[in-house]
Amino acid sequence: MQVRIYDNERVDDLQYKGLKLIQKKDGFCFGVDAVLLANFADVKRGAEVIDLGTGTGIIPVLIAGKTEARHVTGLEIQEEMAEMASRSVSMNGLEERVKIVCGDIRNHSRLFGSSTFDVVVTNPPYMNQGGGLINLSDTKAIARHEILCTLEDVISAASKLLKPGGQMAMVHRPERLVDILCLMRNYKIEPKYIRFVHPSPYKKANLLLIKGSKGGRPQLKMMDPLYIYDEKGNYSEEINRIYCRGMENSWGDGKHGN
Amino acid sequence: MQVRIYDNERVDDLQYKGLKLIQKKDGFCFGVDAVLLANFADVKRGAEVIDLGTGTGIIPVLIAGKTEARHVTGLEIQEEMAEMASRSVSMNGLEERVKIVCGDIRNHSRLFGSSTFDVVVTNPPYMNQGGGLINLSDTKAIARHEILCTLEDVISAASKLLKPGGQMAMVHRPERLVDILCLMRNYKIEPKYIRFVHPSPYKKANLLLIKGSKGGRPQLKMMDPLYIYDEKGNYSEEINRIYCRGMENSWGDGKHGN
Repeated sequence: MQVRIYDNERVDDLQYKGLKLIQKKDGFCFGVDAVLLANFADVKRGAEVIDLGTGTGIIPVLIAGKTEARHVTGLEIQEEMAEMASRSVSMNGLEERVKIVCGDIRNHSRLFGSSTFDVVVTNPPYMNQGGGLINLSDTKAIARHEILCTLEDVISAASKLLKPGGQMAMVHRPERLVDILCLMRNYKIEPKYIRFVHPSPYKKANLLLIKGSKGGRPQLKMMDPLYIYDEKGNYSEEINRIYCRGMENSWGDGKHGN
Repeated sequence: MQVRIYDNERVDDLQYKGLKLIQKKDGFCFGVDAVLLANFADVKRGAEVIDLGTGTGIIPVLIAGKTEARHVTGLEIQEEMAEMASRSVSMNGLEERVKIVCGDIRNHSRLFGSSTFDVVVTNPPYMNQGGGLINLSDTKAIARHEILCTLEDVISAASKLLKPGGQMAMVHRPERLVDILCLMRNYKIEPKYIRFVHPSPYKKANLLLIKGSKGGRPQLKMMDPLYIYDEKGNYSEEINRIYCRGMENSWGDGKHGN
């Protein structure tokens, strides 16, 4: 299908089953965190999935390409981003399985009701809002800072949207670990699996991947560390597997949906 | 000073400034976790320190030997252990700076009042109590399971015992991470530094070290991972530094007291 690409946009090859993504040349581009999250979530055949704060739509496109999810919704508050993400969905011929919705996470019940989804994934803004004035037309700032939604907004929405036993999967920064775990528990999404992502062995973790279960019982499993680079400065074997061989079940915890 | 050693006991050399410790031949012996915790705590000159659940007294003995703490109290509920720990204190000539108290953590306010200590350290039982009957004369079980005190008992006691701005330092298992962080925050001991301990690079963490500040503001720092062994199966450089060069300021975060 032919979709429109604007002058300030580019089309990136996701190097997996021919999937492509439209991004702004000078805007917020997806990073390794989004790709890691799309691999980390356990999406079973027939699952209803939502990505809260989908941005470019990278995660719905990857999850629809990788799994047998029945349907993936991408919720994005910024109109311009949502429109661009919709064109990426069309470009990949995924209109029947992926829908981008432009809306506010805080309106989740009006938009989607409750207990609607099997899986909620989210790569939310990492930084606390802070006190400064921020230009609301700054799409990068909105993607990175808690300007239009806080971590609590995201986790409370996830809690309402998940079916009992449903899974929330998130990527975030270790500096927010206390907030993440306390909010998840407070909102009845019990943290079940945690994986720290390190630039390389001996370096401290700078990302974390976490999965929780709606209404689950307390029992956290620490997973093996994930290194982006090995000791020699090359991509680690695991990262090579993800980026070169695509997103097959390569994560070693035996819990992936396909 | 000559102290009595019983037939079922042995004397271990702590390989630091001639410090020694009495342990039972067939009882619960201190592990690497206690040594790591004694190194991890920030004990400044003149500090008042308490170790909750001191067992053999390893942590008070090491902290008194390593730092310029004014005084270190070791609280232990098991009479036999407390008596043995007291003899270790005497054997090291530390009676003026270390006192072992036999008592129940849950009686903390009667024993010590409130806002009494600059630093609370603790290497508490790791396992949830579970449902089974456990023999109360089993000193190993009491040291390992939450039989006589829960994690909440320990953290709530620490909160009451700490002066404002005082530090709690704990070693525990990653499986209890959610409980640890939520309880610390609930009891106003804000987690400030976290360090995961891995058997070796590429292996998942099986211990964690955490420091929190009484009444502190939310700001968690992830520290470099600590590996017990290197890739070749030898003790890592850091572990060698701790065990061979003693417990000098070798932890790299520049926050140690001496």
